Amino acid sequence: SLQSAKWGDGFESRAAFSTSLQDFAATGNANVRVFAPYTIYKGKASLSVSPVLPTFVKIDSDIGGLKVNRCGSMMLTFCPAIGERKYDWEQRQKFALSPTEVGSLISMGAHDASEFYHDPSMKSRVFHVSFNFLCNFFAAVTNNILKSNEHFNIPVTTAEFAVLKTACSFALPHIMGWDRLTNQSPKGIKGSPSKVNPKQHFDLEWDR
Amino acid sequence: SLQSAKWGDGFESRAAFSTSLQDFAATGNANVRVFAPYTIYKGKASLSVSPVLPTFVKIDSDIGGLKVNRCGSMMLTFCPAIGERKYDWEQRQKFALSPTEVGSLISMGAHDASEFYHDPSMKSRVFHVSFNFLCNFFAAVTNNILKSNEHFNIPVTTAEFAVLKTACSFALPHIMGWDRLTNQSPKGIKGSPSKVNPKQHFDLEWDR
Amino acid sequence: SLQSAKWGDGFESRAAFSTSLQDFAATGNANVRVFAPYTIYKGKASLSVSPVLPTFVKIDSDIGGLKVNRCGSMMLTFCPAIGERKYDWEQRQKFALSPTEVGSLISMGAHDASEFYHDPSMKSRVFHVSFNFLCNFFAAVTNNILKSNEHFNIPVTTAEFAVLKTACSFALPHIMGWDRLTNQSPKGIKGSPSKVNPKQHFDLEWDR
Amino acid sequence: SLQSAKWGDGFESRAAFSTSLQDFAATGNANVRVFAPYTIYKGKASLSVSPVLPTFVKIDSDIGGLKVNRCGSMMLTFCPAIGERKYDWEQRQKFALSPTEVGSLISMGAHDASEFYHDPSMKSRVFHVSFNFLCNFFAAVTNNILKSNEHFNIPVTTAEFAVLKTACSFALPHIMGWDRLTNQSPKGIKGSPSKVNPKQHFDLEWDR
Repeated sequence: SLQSAKWGDGFESRAAFSTSLQDFAATGNANVRVFAPYTIYKGKASLSVSPVLPTFVKIDSDIGGLKVNRCGSMMLTFCPAIGERKYDWEQRQKFALSPTEVGSLISMGAHDASEFYHDPSMKSRVFHVSFNFLCNFFAAVTNNILKSNEHFNIPVTTAEFAVLKTACSFALPHIMGWDRLTNQSPKGIKGSPSKVNPKQHFDLEWDR
Repeated sequence: SLQSAKWGDGFESRAAFSTSLQDFAATGNANVRVFAPYTIYKGKASLSVSPVLPTFVKIDSDIGGLKVNRCGSMMLTFCPAIGERKYDWEQRQKFALSPTEVGSLISMGAHDASEFYHDPSMKSRVFHVSFNFLCNFFAAVTNNILKSNEHFNIPVTTAEFAVLKTACSFALPHIMGWDRLTNQSPKGIKGSPSKVNPKQHFDLEWDR
Repeated sequence: SLQSAKWGDGFESRAAFSTSLQDFAATGNANVRVFAPYTIYKGKASLSVSPVLPTFVKIDSDIGGLKVNRCGSMMLTFCPAIGERKYDWEQRQKFALSPTEVGSLISMGAHDASEFYHDPSMKSRVFHVSFNFLCNFFAAVTNNILKSNEHFNIPVTTAEFAVLKTACSFALPHIMGWDRLTNQSPKGIKGSPSKVNPKQHFDLEWDR
Repeated sequence: SLQSAKWGDGFESRAAFSTSLQDFAATGNANVRVFAPYTIYKGKASLSVSPVLPTFVKIDSDIGGLKVNRCGSMMLTFCPAIGERKYDWEQRQKFALSPTEVGSLISMGAHDASEFYHDPSMKSRVFHVSFNFLCNFFAAVTNNILKSNEHFNIPVTTAEFAVLKTACSFALPHIMGWDRLTNQSPKGIKGSPSKVNPKQHFDLEWDR
């Protein structure tokens, strides 16, 4: 459904994958969805990358709060080219990198390759994404359906990979839900401790 | 498969290793606790990682303000496996990494090992956590109580360690309280200086 | 001394290279433009660096939202020196690095060089910016107009480049519009799942 | 004066250097000053590190806005030890690293050394801070007043330096004022462009 698809691609008004982002700028336009994929356009295909945020559910307990329901991901969308600077959105292929797969991507060195296999729902379809620095920084998705194959090949430059790496490193804590981390309000008014207590953080270890 | 089981959802509603986070999204649900640990599930045990934010107390002085009361940490929680994809939360072992211990973890190279010993409250219990890249990126906690030992061993992949490193680097300023850093409001209306004044920041050095 | 004159104050009130920033500090002065370029002053020229944020347009569809209209950039402004610590703002030359060009800059190693050519609007003018670590960390812009050349050469120290690299890495997700990423509000109240559901993020891949 | 001194040290209620930080947590306690230095306690001295944010002035022009008045810095505070875990705050020595000096610090490799000399106001006093990885990650300040010397020597471990590096990298954009960067509100309602326009960011280059 459109509802659960995340982020957009910026170059098509139909915007099939969007996310419900909130604008916390001070201008009042909260809850506006924003589509800002990073897209690499190449001769035979394009690759768009967009973070997908986790969803949360209320915790069924006394302490309350929220916990992750569906974890976030980094959505890769491959589109085949059908002309000069024209890409066929209908033929797009999506691939959602998990946080650990994002970790694999951002830790790649200059002579590494990463391969990910997804077999969602056992529907006789297998996705295979690989990033291979040996082959001129090559990104590819292969989709095996009914013994036929779809291939999307994107040569990624060093500069483009640096953007992916920096942007994915920025986004990783967000897709993990750690951007929800912020400071607690002060719990009480105490006197000022006058001694250095370097082990004070150990107290929590006994709280099991 | 175990391979893809890297990212959990807090897999138990009792959610004992919580961190009291606040939701500052623009939707009004402030002060909601959010539980978003990064969990690595392996055959014999699991390892969950969650930031714990510092607490603050009011400063007992004329100028007012808050200072850190209990410093933040990165909480590691080890659980033994008791079946396929089942982990015994009752037998969990917690270990709180200090900011400097987090610094040790995130500065580890490909051939390093980090070891941390905690002896909280001298209660005849010693915690020992080690990360060892030489042993296939191995994380372990040992707990010596009454001359018996508990061990939790977690093989950590390069990709999982990249997530830990990126997420801990993101979280480190938060557990130090530096995320409270934000800009001052303008203090006054001055004319525009027309000269480069390169040493202006040195003024503070004389203010002792 | 020139040595310490690395950080300026926008040294001219006319502040032509502005970026329309908004102040989201809690003090109510939202929508205030803030000018905070990082400027390197050298003997023959100065180089100022400032992020330029993307602009957005409303999406013409049922789901609503915003998408990027003009992408952001990192604006480089070169000014020739016309005296000791005096730079001729009228003779400035601007060069807007795209996100991918920023990626090229921040991924430069100690023995690399980056060159960018812009030929905007085919107006017989060509910009050429290069960063070259082999020539003592040299930044330069060349502007070919009507067969005459303008040159601005800035020797950049390792420390200054570290600032550029760190600040541009920080700014990159912002000029891409990814800083608009924030968490969704909880969508509903569900029971707490008691099982690990590792493939839940794959669901989105089928939603094409 | 107390007013212009920045951040605190957490272990003394007198809190001589504080900063006017604002709490933008959703709990309503805005404008609360927060003291959260990172302090390394060693046998002969301690070293506290705290960011000092820039101050801004209104721009005297039609376009309005704010520009940096006094640039930010990373304040180093050295205190001599006067007993076990007791440090003499009265004898502290402050040293404000500029953004470029922070760049020098965070770009240090395993075999580098950084030295900074400050001669504020030509008051016959010279500060000299050095970080030297060859001497077991050694931080020191020397203060030459009236031909006498004060020395503060702090051995810094790799882990402590990793904290400094990570926290200073986090803080650098803040002390430069770039954390004020946030997204512009949408400027207008346009139709959706249907063509890829990769050079759209070049337009700004002509706006001189």
